[in-house]
Amino acid sequence: TLTSFGVFLLQMGWGDLGVFGEPSKETPHLDQMAAEGMLFLDFYTASPLCSPSRAALLTGRLPVRNGFYTTNGHARNAYTPQDIVGGIPDSELLLPELLKKAGYTNKIIGKWHLGHQPQFHPLRHGFDEWLGSPNCHFGPYDSRERPNIPIYRDWEMIGRYYEDFKIDLKTGEANLTQLYLQEALDFISKQQASQQPFFLYWAIDATHAPVYASKQFLGTSQRGLYGDAVREIDDSVGKILKHLQQLGISENTFVFFTSDNGAALISAPKQGGSNGPFLCGKQTTFEGGMREPAIAWWPGHIPAGGVSHQLGSVMDLFSTSLSLAGLQPPSDRQIDGIDLLPVILQGKLIDRPIFYYRGNELMAVRAGLYKAHYWTWSNSWEEHSKGIDFCPGQSVAGVTTHTQEEHTYLPLLFHLGRDPGEKYPLSFASEEYQRAVEHISGLVQQHKASLVPGQPQLNVCDQAVMNWSPPGCEKLGKCLKAPESDPKKCSWPH
Amino acid sequence: TLTSFGVFLLQMGWGDLGVFGEPSKETPHLDQMAAEGMLFLDFYTASPLCSPSRAALLTGRLPVRNGFYTTNGHARNAYTPQDIVGGIPDSELLLPELLKKAGYTNKIIGKWHLGHQPQFHPLRHGFDEWLGSPNCHFGPYDSRERPNIPIYRDWEMIGRYYEDFKIDLKTGEANLTQLYLQEALDFISKQQASQQPFFLYWAIDATHAPVYASKQFLGTSQRGLYGDAVREIDDSVGKILKHLQQLGISENTFVFFTSDNGAALISAPKQGGSNGPFLCGKQTTFEGGMREPAIAWWPGHIPAGGVSHQLGSVMDLFSTSLSLAGLQPPSDRQIDGIDLLPVILQGKLIDRPIFYYRGNELMAVRAGLYKAHYWTWSNSWEEHSKGIDFCPGQSVAGVTTHTQEEHTYLPLLFHLGRDPGEKYPLSFASEEYQRAVEHISGLVQQHKASLVPGQPQLNVCDQAVMNWSPPGCEKLGKCLKAPESDPKKCSWPH
Repeated sequence: TLTSFGVFLLQMGWGDLGVFGEPSKETPHLDQMAAEGMLFLDFYTASPLCSPSRAALLTGRLPVRNGFYTTNGHARNAYTPQDIVGGIPDSELLLPELLKKAGYTNKIIGKWHLGHQPQFHPLRHGFDEWLGSPNCHFGPYDSRERPNIPIYRDWEMIGRYYEDFKIDLKTGEANLTQLYLQEALDFISKQQASQQPFFLYWAIDATHAPVYASKQFLGTSQRGLYGDAVREIDDSVGKILKHLQQLGISENTFVFFTSDNGAALISAPKQGGSNGPFLCGKQTTFEGGMREPAIAWWPGHIPAGGVSHQLGSVMDLFSTSLSLAGLQPPSDRQIDGIDLLPVILQGKLIDRPIFYYRGNELMAVRAGLYKAHYWTWSNSWEEHSKGIDFCPGQSVAGVTTHTQEEHTYLPLLFHLGRDPGEKYPLSFASEEYQRAVEHISGLVQQHKASLVPGQPQLNVCDQAVMNWSPPGCEKLGKCLKAPESDPKKCSWPH
Repeated sequence: TLTSFGVFLLQMGWGDLGVFGEPSKETPHLDQMAAEGMLFLDFYTASPLCSPSRAALLTGRLPVRNGFYTTNGHARNAYTPQDIVGGIPDSELLLPELLKKAGYTNKIIGKWHLGHQPQFHPLRHGFDEWLGSPNCHFGPYDSRERPNIPIYRDWEMIGRYYEDFKIDLKTGEANLTQLYLQEALDFISKQQASQQPFFLYWAIDATHAPVYASKQFLGTSQRGLYGDAVREIDDSVGKILKHLQQLGISENTFVFFTSDNGAALISAPKQGGSNGPFLCGKQTTFEGGMREPAIAWWPGHIPAGGVSHQLGSVMDLFSTSLSLAGLQPPSDRQIDGIDLLPVILQGKLIDRPIFYYRGNELMAVRAGLYKAHYWTWSNSWEEHSKGIDFCPGQSVAGVTTHTQEEHTYLPLLFHLGRDPGEKYPLSFASEEYQRAVEHISGLVQQHKASLVPGQPQLNVCDQAVMNWSPPGCEKLGKCLKAPESDPKKCSWPH
């Protein structure tokens, strides 16, 4: 029988889990998952922002290859808001498309975020089932300016955030996580009953601003509303793993937990999480922006209590899943993910670099314990003066810069073992610096020489493409009138 | 039979342990100790500096009561360097003095730090045996200016740092931790053989600058020399616990691991540790300066894998040990420690505040999850401009101040659950602020009303009292000539 996969992709920081030192230690089920499986301490997402990371996970390719980036400005983070015109190109091969050919049933629960126009629908890209939203459910709410985000079941919307899926913005109460949990349990039961292998991608948005939790979790965390949401996610993960065990299929289901970007410190303290000892957060290419909590779980296969320092990436989930399914990755394109099975099952360490991109720019590269910054930037003085701060309470001279600083010819080098917080650049004159930078610069040259950037998908915005009239709206009487098309360059301030 | 005690008092930050989220996760034995015992997440030392914390641990009393503070300046940290005249007053009752009456054999291995003049000798204050040094082994070394610190065995010195107990300052190599480990193992064996209850206080200095490790540990850590020292300590703790188990006395030995102050970030990255997500480090009354790693271990009594949010203090080790020995704490003086046995054995939570003192000033108070700062200060602009930085890479406006800022009438209030990093003071106008501050101010009033400060011991310095001619020096030909006595006010810049 084929091995099934579960991927939990949350929006949490490295430091949000008890097992990673969150001082409230309120994630007993994730801590238990780690105790039963393997903890990755050096695991990365592919972008400091959500949409590009998700596209990277599902394609096994860097956003600069799969098109999830912008060229509207230099080194700008871009994602898929309601007015984005682009999305996942048909030319990209997604993990569920490949698994489908091997007989897998693929389900996404939660936020898709790879484009919301019809051609980008997840069921057109390999998924068989969907319950969730195409975008983040940002404000303003119930305004004329933009429709509330729809929630889909498979091909059609079944309602909208706030209108049909209530979130009390004052209390943070919403029962969506319970809905998404039940959906996961039911799907797993169905697959077990029909003995069909599956890929379940559980990518819910409770910890993304505006943060929410169910009534039974509200007020239960020391950490406030964000902690309530984390506790509910933790509880849900525990219930899903227990369900796999009770159905007797846990030894045949490979499960991975990780996150799509570092905690959004701009939303702290009420809605922002923790990146532990790391520098800055979401939106930046410092460790706080891209190093993620990660746990692999597969009872009977992965030795309990394992810890790995393998440099890993969300893109590896693509390659690892294919390997488990006995499939070959596509050979007609560059795949950035690697197969982690030798790491997970045999304790190997595979030498590979981590590339930290911000939009169209390679900002930094990690090889071994060294990280070289070719560009540094947090955000502009202009944004910063408005109170937008990606590094609250942190300031490292020459590192957390508010102008884009180029270091191409003399990269800033950090040793992440001695200095995980990226506070003490190595002396340019040291032998250690020269040896490490020479090595990393070779990797950069090799990487850039073979790089074929994809067509950028996140350049054009148009109010007309918003979720005015998603399929199914007519049955619900929820179709809205779109304005005239007026495509513009999207504005990406950071 | 009476329960024996082991106290490991190290110089490490909250974030230095794998179980507290250090990203290299290199402390398997301490993590295992936590898995077998109880982890305290909200445990504090009694001062952001070493000597006063140690005096507090052994007396169960705040430094401002037991005399380990200075009045030479406002809110100044003071300790016991070589030229200090004061030390632990005879009027203080130390834990080993009390235990001795109940038949315990008491041993200190490592740094005493409660004064080095003859009247302060640990064997005059209840300890039966000693291997270690009276002070830190600071530089300058082999100079005329000051003698190298002696190492004592019991009443007499057996050599000096650098001269007889080598530390290679270039490589950091020294075998002292191995010496101290062997001494602990031998002492435990001896006590087990004679069936005598014991108190072992293992307070070694490998992670205090200048940091050292044995050859077998040098270069083994991702974290550099500091990490090598941590690994050796971790390994030693593991060996001592295993020894207790192999001798069959682990169920009759209560063991506690903690630290005397937060990691010294001024020594980072080479010799400084990690305070995890907390603000600043040693020398400050922010969480990074005083929240400590803490683990209780007592197989067969403490349920494995326990976690406690009890607000704990090193002073509680005094009261807890007495309780275990069936002794009453002295009733003729104020004891600040509480008996943690109901917490450890029955999972209770005892309501009690934590007082954060810097020298003679009550800087902050924690009650529940709220912490009120009555004074804020990191260090002076003058010191800071010399590169002395207790909060490297961190800067929170109005909080990590470089002038002593008084907030007596409107304390800065933080909620440590939502904001463990002390970055977001609560609004003065909020109901939450008013409720919490009213409660804490009541505690402060009560505390101050009953406070009888001790005679300050750390005011006077004199080159003549340095370790020129410790007892035993003549046998070794290591007596040095002391200069004329010239007592002065000690200078405490921060």
